[in-house]
Amino acid sequence: MKLKVLWPGKIRNDAVRQLQEFYLNRINQLAQCEIVVTREAKGLLEKHAGRIKEIEARGLEKHIEDDYIICLFDKGKKMNSPEFSRFLKKAGESPARTVTFVAGGFLGLPERILNRADFLLSLSSMTFSHELIRIMLLEQIYRSLSIVNGRQYAK
Amino acid sequence: MKLKVLWPGKIRNDAVRQLQEFYLNRINQLAQCEIVVTREAKGLLEKHAGRIKEIEARGLEKHIEDDYIICLFDKGKKMNSPEFSRFLKKAGESPARTVTFVAGGFLGLPERILNRADFLLSLSSMTFSHELIRIMLLEQIYRSLSIVNGRQYAK
Repeated sequence: MKLKVLWPGKIRNDAVRQLQEFYLNRINQLAQCEIVVTREAKGLLEKHAGRIKEIEARGLEKHIEDDYIICLFDKGKKMNSPEFSRFLKKAGESPARTVTFVAGGFLGLPERILNRADFLLSLSSMTFSHELIRIMLLEQIYRSLSIVNGRQYAK
Repeated sequence: MKLKVLWPGKIRNDAVRQLQEFYLNRINQLAQCEIVVTREAKGLLEKHAGRIKEIEARGLEKHIEDDYIICLFDKGKKMNSPEFSRFLKKAGESPARTVTFVAGGFLGLPERILNRADFLLSLSSMTFSHELIRIMLLEQIYRSLSIVNGRQYAK
């Protein structure tokens, strides 16, 4: 299974970035996975949401290609971890096609990217900071791969 | 509003512990909140789950008193962040009564503690590591207090 994780702008909080590395290392013991930090719209106020999202959409599109795209979206589908694990296994079965997760920036994902998605995934009914949700995603990818590989993974 | 957060055993991952401090500091700008690390059953294999949970139940009970108890539980009630914010505001309205959140250890919470709870809360359909879920809880408490206080808090 070949995985890619895209998000605009690097994680700024040091501890959160350490967790990004922690989970990426663990994931890489089980599957090929790279995180691609795409262009972030900087220096624009929130009232320019349209321009911010346009810039970030273009940055993301450069890395999407013909992948199977899973976007994080708060109104997306919810699954429990065994369901997500089966879903990920199935999505990754075609060896020629990368499974690409996309998480948004401060303002969430541009509509154009959501429309392009093969699947919209919600990790929780609650809203989490866009930095923390990235770690939750990585943790869940690692957990899924552990389940697929028959490893026991701690609660 | 007076808040308390209980869990057995301190967080071992350095980056996760840094995030605990990060969110606790932010929470403390808005409300009185303390984290109490209760006794953790150490050196027992998972097959001794009953004994582990008994030890951890006793440790938690020492700090529960007459509080309003909210236990994290994967089959608990799900809320979105504005709902959780209103719920927390209401729970904290009685000034004499502390609102106490309880998160489990590696094996989850003992049944006795779950039975004692005034409310069972689920943060997600998915299972997260018991260390990461603690951070998710703190983030969500901080977010709720920000909403209650009319502060804008970033996605």
